[in-house]
Amino acid sequence: MPLRTRRSLIDLDDLAIEELDEIFSRTAAFEERRPEPRLAHTACVNIFFEPSTRTFTSFNLAQLRLGADVVNLTPTDMSYLTKGESIEDTVLTLSAMGVAVLVVRHPVEHYPEQLAKHFDGHVVNAGDGAHAHPTQGLLDLYTLLQDFGSLHGRCIAIVGDVLHSRVAHSVMAGLRRLESDVVLVGPNGFVPSEYATGGVRVERELDAVLPEVDAVMLLRIQRERLTTMPIAQDDYVARYRLDARRLSLLKSDALVLHPGPYNRGVELDDSVFRFPGWRYRQQVLHGVSVRMAVLDLLVNGT
Amino acid sequence: MPLRTRRSLIDLDDLAIEELDEIFSRTAAFEERRPEPRLAHTACVNIFFEPSTRTFTSFNLAQLRLGADVVNLTPTDMSYLTKGESIEDTVLTLSAMGVAVLVVRHPVEHYPEQLAKHFDGHVVNAGDGAHAHPTQGLLDLYTLLQDFGSLHGRCIAIVGDVLHSRVAHSVMAGLRRLESDVVLVGPNGFVPSEYATGGVRVERELDAVLPEVDAVMLLRIQRERLTTMPIAQDDYVARYRLDARRLSLLKSDALVLHPGPYNRGVELDDSVFRFPGWRYRQQVLHGVSVRMAVLDLLVNGT
Amino acid sequence: MPLRTRRSLIDLDDLAIEELDEIFSRTAAFEERRPEPRLAHTACVNIFFEPSTRTFTSFNLAQLRLGADVVNLTPTDMSYLTKGESIEDTVLTLSAMGVAVLVVRHPVEHYPEQLAKHFDGHVVNAGDGAHAHPTQGLLDLYTLLQDFGSLHGRCIAIVGDVLHSRVAHSVMAGLRRLESDVVLVGPNGFVPSEYATGGVRVERELDAVLPEVDAVMLLRIQRERLTTMPIAQDDYVARYRLDARRLSLLKSDALVLHPGPYNRGVELDDSVFRFPGWRYRQQVLHGVSVRMAVLDLLVNGT
Repeated sequence: MPLRTRRSLIDLDDLAIEELDEIFSRTAAFEERRPEPRLAHTACVNIFFEPSTRTFTSFNLAQLRLGADVVNLTPTDMSYLTKGESIEDTVLTLSAMGVAVLVVRHPVEHYPEQLAKHFDGHVVNAGDGAHAHPTQGLLDLYTLLQDFGSLHGRCIAIVGDVLHSRVAHSVMAGLRRLESDVVLVGPNGFVPSEYATGGVRVERELDAVLPEVDAVMLLRIQRERLTTMPIAQDDYVARYRLDARRLSLLKSDALVLHPGPYNRGVELDDSVFRFPGWRYRQQVLHGVSVRMAVLDLLVNGT
Repeated sequence: MPLRTRRSLIDLDDLAIEELDEIFSRTAAFEERRPEPRLAHTACVNIFFEPSTRTFTSFNLAQLRLGADVVNLTPTDMSYLTKGESIEDTVLTLSAMGVAVLVVRHPVEHYPEQLAKHFDGHVVNAGDGAHAHPTQGLLDLYTLLQDFGSLHGRCIAIVGDVLHSRVAHSVMAGLRRLESDVVLVGPNGFVPSEYATGGVRVERELDAVLPEVDAVMLLRIQRERLTTMPIAQDDYVARYRLDARRLSLLKSDALVLHPGPYNRGVELDDSVFRFPGWRYRQQVLHGVSVRMAVLDLLVNGT
Repeated sequence: MPLRTRRSLIDLDDLAIEELDEIFSRTAAFEERRPEPRLAHTACVNIFFEPSTRTFTSFNLAQLRLGADVVNLTPTDMSYLTKGESIEDTVLTLSAMGVAVLVVRHPVEHYPEQLAKHFDGHVVNAGDGAHAHPTQGLLDLYTLLQDFGSLHGRCIAIVGDVLHSRVAHSVMAGLRRLESDVVLVGPNGFVPSEYATGGVRVERELDAVLPEVDAVMLLRIQRERLTTMPIAQDDYVARYRLDARRLSLLKSDALVLHPGPYNRGVELDDSVFRFPGWRYRQQVLHGVSVRMAVLDLLVNGT
């Protein structure tokens, strides 16, 4: 699909490899110099049906830095909920109003995709249930590329609750696209064996994996999506928490990433924050510029 | 009243005919070309005590497109509710802060008018109970004028819960001002006979009215303002829902409008969306530019 | 501490006397002419954990007038509350995102100070429990200075619930810094005797104090921070409410200030609004410009 006809970003694996390259190249440009107001007179509406600090703030800043007109709607503001209108009709209305970009987070999977069918402008998925979170995936890839230059032949471990993590689903697709090997590590309830296909391996024990990987991407346990824990938290901590001992098993130039928010003491302890390859701050920083690049690509094309 | 001394817009029938003309002429100008930032350094505060998607977003976009400084207050943010201050004193405070425009929606009728007494700047009524919603009325008139050029001698039907509809009340005043005939259609509980005065007729059966009118303005049943339904919903649907059969009774160039949000299956069915005279999208689009025109007129005068 | 290294504003007594002067001089400049966008491309995030109308709106307008990129987070939006992240880590994340200014109101004393330890940018305390509200203190001082030129040797009464008032605590520090005498007036439960030190006196009866003071600063009873009232409201009104009789005891050019929101009938009656020295509107007006000056000083230095 040629770049200028792309309307929405629902999942990372929708993007052509040339589009990935273009996004990363614009991300770098936006970080190097103060951007032109390339979204001036462009109306962006953000609707977050789930709480969010970092993704919400990050999209707002990306839009404001590009000079967009920004309106934030919260579900309690939205009249359709009390007046019987369907969300599809609300979205149709925003289209008619000339809103160019709709950023949506929703607990129901494929909800943003459904909205995109009714919306004339560009829908950006800011996280839908356990399905996808493409801009988080993009910022993770960009962060890895900043250190590694290329992901070809690298081996990246994703550790924890892959099953319920929209971040993991989005980044896996991207890592494979960029020809990285992927190792998913976690207990069966978090990493079903069926995930093993193509360049993706499944492992149960973290210690065995650490010496061979170039980067570890830690995941938060998605308690809000779990009815029961598939593993006792003490067991999880014992087998998967990244701590000083496990960090010492890594290659000296390995990276550690986390999409945030992290739960100190559960999937990591404070020794991670002193590890030279800890890249959380860079991920967050790149998050704003990657989102600027995505918005710019969708609205202005190539 | 000369234009430059008008302070607030509480109801559509406050506007002189020259002011109506001026608003419509600016609306057209704002749609033709990218507007100058005529509200630069002008502080606008929006307070919506009732949920709103389209009016809230529309006012925000109108303000941002004109370069205003925009602050949205939600009732839960407002300290007076917990600290014992009266809303009048809060409004006086916003005046002192240099806020130039206050856009207010409130479930209590005449609430914006009360606030205007305490506010040095301009109050725009964004809907007060069942009383008035002047900017919605203006956008409806503008939409009709785009097709008809003039409303003189036209006949416009307003169908449904006129009694509880602030939109109907505002648009009726405007239609009469522009010398259109008005037919109100609905059961007694929605359209009391007393509405019939001057150029306004009251009819009970929609089918008899459709062949003679130039436009039909549908209303939503305002469930949130009703304690009991004056008519069973099945009856309402049978007698008043605009569907394919009823559309066929209309003149071929008749228009159909709806202020939104609409309840599919109740006051209309999906055949309306395929009717060539369906103008909902145009209404929404004009809604932003009409509000820009109102704000510009209030703040900058003629 | 030299001005350009000041990072945050937690309490008014942190400020060097030269910084106070600089803030007041910029406040005056911002009121005289339309300001340059000195915060262009500067990201400001406002987090209000307590309801606020005037302080919230005032900070928003100050930021927008200086051209900042403004994001408002409300506690319900903030994912850390549901996802187990500490607020410190959230703040660290906002730092990483390039947020330059964090304006925080919180019911817990010293909360903004704690956040400032984790935040790379500038934290401005917008009120923390009963502890401090430095920008309110600054606008009070600025308002007094507009009338008096200097506060040296002036005598200012602060009347009411000093104990629970963050405003009183901030303004007392500032008045002493500018060499004004301070008289605290109220019952023991609101004005403990221990407040009397240096140039600060404690008095129990308002009538005796009024003839000698140059200004009266009234306080609201902070019901939301009181478990029991230390004095019956009728008694309070009888002994401390500023009314026509008490106003007549004041010097003819005395000033009356109130941080707002005020409770008519409790700490003041309507005769105060007609008193020539009533400065509430000026306080609110200066509130926006003082906050512009604080933000400009923190971000751009001297």
